[in-house]
Amino acid sequence: MRELELIECLAQVLAPGGPRVLRWLGDDAAVVRARGYAVTSVDTLVDGVHFRSGQLTPTEIGQRAVGSALSDLAAMGAHGGEAYLALALAPGTALTDAVALCSGAQAAAASCGVTIAGGDVSASPTLTVSVTVVGWARDPGELVGRDGARPGDLVAVTGSLGAAGAGLALLDGRAGRAGRAGSDAISESVATALRDRYASPRPRLDAGLALSALGATAMIDLSDGLATDARHLAMQSGDRLELRLAALPLAAGVREVAAQLDVDPATFAATAGEDYELCACLPASAQEAVESGCLLKAGALDRPPITWIGRVLEPPAGLSFVDSVGPLSGYEHSA
Amino acid sequence: MRELELIECLAQVLAPGGPRVLRWLGDDAAVVRARGYAVTSVDTLVDGVHFRSGQLTPTEIGQRAVGSALSDLAAMGAHGGEAYLALALAPGTALTDAVALCSGAQAAAASCGVTIAGGDVSASPTLTVSVTVVGWARDPGELVGRDGARPGDLVAVTGSLGAAGAGLALLDGRAGRAGRAGSDAISESVATALRDRYASPRPRLDAGLALSALGATAMIDLSDGLATDARHLAMQSGDRLELRLAALPLAAGVREVAAQLDVDPATFAATAGEDYELCACLPASAQEAVESGCLLKAGALDRPPITWIGRVLEPPAGLSFVDSVGPLSGYEHSA
Repeated sequence: MRELELIECLAQVLAPGGPRVLRWLGDDAAVVRARGYAVTSVDTLVDGVHFRSGQLTPTEIGQRAVGSALSDLAAMGAHGGEAYLALALAPGTALTDAVALCSGAQAAAASCGVTIAGGDVSASPTLTVSVTVVGWARDPGELVGRDGARPGDLVAVTGSLGAAGAGLALLDGRAGRAGRAGSDAISESVATALRDRYASPRPRLDAGLALSALGATAMIDLSDGLATDARHLAMQSGDRLELRLAALPLAAGVREVAAQLDVDPATFAATAGEDYELCACLPASAQEAVESGCLLKAGALDRPPITWIGRVLEPPAGLSFVDSVGPLSGYEHSA
Repeated sequence: MRELELIECLAQVLAPGGPRVLRWLGDDAAVVRARGYAVTSVDTLVDGVHFRSGQLTPTEIGQRAVGSALSDLAAMGAHGGEAYLALALAPGTALTDAVALCSGAQAAAASCGVTIAGGDVSASPTLTVSVTVVGWARDPGELVGRDGARPGDLVAVTGSLGAAGAGLALLDGRAGRAGRAGSDAISESVATALRDRYASPRPRLDAGLALSALGATAMIDLSDGLATDARHLAMQSGDRLELRLAALPLAAGVREVAAQLDVDPATFAATAGEDYELCACLPASAQEAVESGCLLKAGALDRPPITWIGRVLEPPAGLSFVDSVGPLSGYEHSA
């Protein structure tokens, strides 16, 4: 496969952006009309490190690369803008597989209103997908960093946790639909949903904007797992986050997979990672606004819109789970 | 080496940007105050494909990755802004080598007034450096694509050609300082300069801005070599570019290396690639402005500021060298 041949195929798969994208594929650089503040993040997925190409279709690899990258924009409370796709393809990659990967990337971007405006194609011994995402904000005050949590804030997560880790356990064969005892069996539809959460994460851009509008003081997306990521919020804010394992919203099927793996379900959900939900600290006044249903529209999230899982306390900085017997290290996730 | 340890080291190597960079390393994304139009490009270097890690120091790998990426902004006539560095490091990479690579990246960025505002560190079987560069323009009319050349325009290149290809031939051992006959020997200082042009390309951002101000109608940077890159200008503009091999500005030492390789020096310079000079089409009126010295300040370029090498003719679209006996295929460059 020749680079130019591939780029021509990609130009057909990718959809040109709206009027803000003045130049995209085919020139030395893309040109995009800017809004006030550019919010930029890069995320790289390497075959054998962040995923295994035998476990995912090329389409899913593209979806996963773009979905996980866009999650960083959600965590800032930014509006999605553009994505740039740097593909390094292993020798012998079929043109159809490369095009399928880009179709998956395009689908993930389009579902968030994001344009893939450029990128790079090269050869590599190792399939590597590096995605740069650019979001925009009118005012930097709309954006939420990791460092603004204050004592008295409440801690919330979006959606449900543990699904991606459970999906990977099913893909890896560490867990199975039949289970061991009957009580830990999983239906086909639940197994499919778990696998999809791993293969094709849905970045929470709408929720990120809503949480920012609610006054979120600190926010992060859950890529490494709540136990790691909430600690970043605590350390960078200089406060203590106190969370409750029992409060974590577990995805359907997580209890069963955790039972098969002989780990506590909530511990699994807090450490398995890659759910790409958001964890945010919010002023206590936001709780009433959320529960009265304003700002977070029904249907924007696939479970209770957000779940309150803890609170922010005075320093020293750190993270604790009030209902855990020790530090969470029972389950280490690896792709 | 742990990811967080490395990121802490990098934060010390990289210099925080000016007042426009509101957030950089350490959050989910960088936040940069935008100017009118964002100009964005991604360039990936893979060990064994685009360079060989045994031939370059880690510092040079970083310089080369950022320098070659910024060259795409030069080719658009954009002002340099920010760079984002996605590093995938092979197992066993020493922390000192990773830091040196970032120091090289930082040096290349700083020399162009560019801030490294973020990035990503991961593991990979194959050292891979993917660099996203962002430049800015107040007005899209200041930017120069590949598609605007018009019959009657003149074609120019900046600086000198063939240096990077000759430097790589010296690194590869295909050529040497002593030469074969005495007449093709190369002095130590010339050999060092050729090697440096390969190891640490200098993106022509100032020249790109000057050529844009002179009214450049189409522009590209010379990554694959003039014979390939000028053809892109011709095909995307829909015109014929007629160039003269004899007019090409050869870097010192290129004649000698080409003689050692038994290839015509100008053919070598037109095909060896990776010089990261600019090739631009300009209205004929620009020639007088250039030669009277306005706009291109002395010292901004390291040789005759620009060299006129041909002209743009009516369609059919294509590229020809008037003084070549056939298509240029005598020398194929590969890293």
